[in-house]
Amino acid sequence: MVGYKHYLENIRDLTDGKELLSSGMTQEVDRCRAALERARDGAVVAFVSSGDAGVYGMAGLALELAANEGFPLPIEIVPGVSAANAAAARLGAPLMLDYACISLSDLLVPWETIRRRVEAMAAADLVLALYNPKSAKRVLQIEEVAAIVRQCRAGTTPVGVATAVASEDERIVLTDLDHLLEQEIGMRSVVIIGNSSSKCLNGWFVTPRGYRL
Amino acid sequence: MVGYKHYLENIRDLTDGKELLSSGMTQEVDRCRAALERARDGAVVAFVSSGDAGVYGMAGLALELAANEGFPLPIEIVPGVSAANAAAARLGAPLMLDYACISLSDLLVPWETIRRRVEAMAAADLVLALYNPKSAKRVLQIEEVAAIVRQCRAGTTPVGVATAVASEDERIVLTDLDHLLEQEIGMRSVVIIGNSSSKCLNGWFVTPRGYRL
Repeated sequence: MVGYKHYLENIRDLTDGKELLSSGMTQEVDRCRAALERARDGAVVAFVSSGDAGVYGMAGLALELAANEGFPLPIEIVPGVSAANAAAARLGAPLMLDYACISLSDLLVPWETIRRRVEAMAAADLVLALYNPKSAKRVLQIEEVAAIVRQCRAGTTPVGVATAVASEDERIVLTDLDHLLEQEIGMRSVVIIGNSSSKCLNGWFVTPRGYRL
Repeated sequence: MVGYKHYLENIRDLTDGKELLSSGMTQEVDRCRAALERARDGAVVAFVSSGDAGVYGMAGLALELAANEGFPLPIEIVPGVSAANAAAARLGAPLMLDYACISLSDLLVPWETIRRRVEAMAAADLVLALYNPKSAKRVLQIEEVAAIVRQCRAGTTPVGVATAVASEDERIVLTDLDHLLEQEIGMRSVVIIGNSSSKCLNGWFVTPRGYRL
């Protein structure tokens, strides 16, 4: 089993008795290559990602590397519950209508591209699920996003901040667009910004789908 | 346990010995009200949705109805693997970068709103995951979407059609934008349209995230 070491620690009940290969957070390519090499050498390898491996996870990198470096391996992608879906379930039902997942990390995508996407989503009244909204070094992006969306939506638009969902550090905050930047947001947070029809109902964040009740 | 009858049949291993309330496909509001009433009367009720209950599912309706009709109930939303994520895993890794989920059903949202969203997503180079792309009566929407996206992206842009994923009727087709409309697409299909960087690698649909390999 290959994975970022904290992820493997989180699934100790599944790793017992297995050979483990782990490494630090930023060594994705090395970790992925190690997984493919072990598989090429005959092992059945589980390459562990958090959330859904297909959403900002390791599935794409594994397929790219296997193709680029000529590993003719049978690969199966196992889908999972992505962070936006887990966050949404804790907050209520904010993703009931059309929504976009956007990562604010500009490590692999230029900020100009990300900003242009946020502008388009905001204008098209999509619910926004923001991955990697903020880190210790990257704090301005979420401020810019809040300002862009505020131009198209009311300050009272519901916003959820879900941090470390399903861990013992889980923290769920339901706020609004005008108070988003006052919240504690970090590397393990997902921020969900409602559209023009989203509302708070009994403490739940709901984007109504349009049923007549 | 309350749910659309085919969904309950799909989880027979979990329903054994439980009281079941089921109804047909279009009676969502009645089904939801029945679930809330049984809970108000003291039962522990599981209200079953397919995929993720929070994405075009029943979670929002349940919360809305509970608020509107004054059911002061403890409710827990359990997240799941949504159809786009399940489809993506079978196709490869098309959702590795920013993407939007859009339903082409105009039963609850005006087509004009949906069309405007598709135009914005196409221009912003987002991967598109299309839910409810086509039904027996609703066939023009997917044609319009293909034409809109074609204005912004090459005809060779990878497109996946995943139908009835994880059932015995599962059918996975990897094609491109110029050949999308020749494919068999139905009520149980999800269509994923790549962005300008998406490609086919060894038969997999991959949207590279930008790692240097």
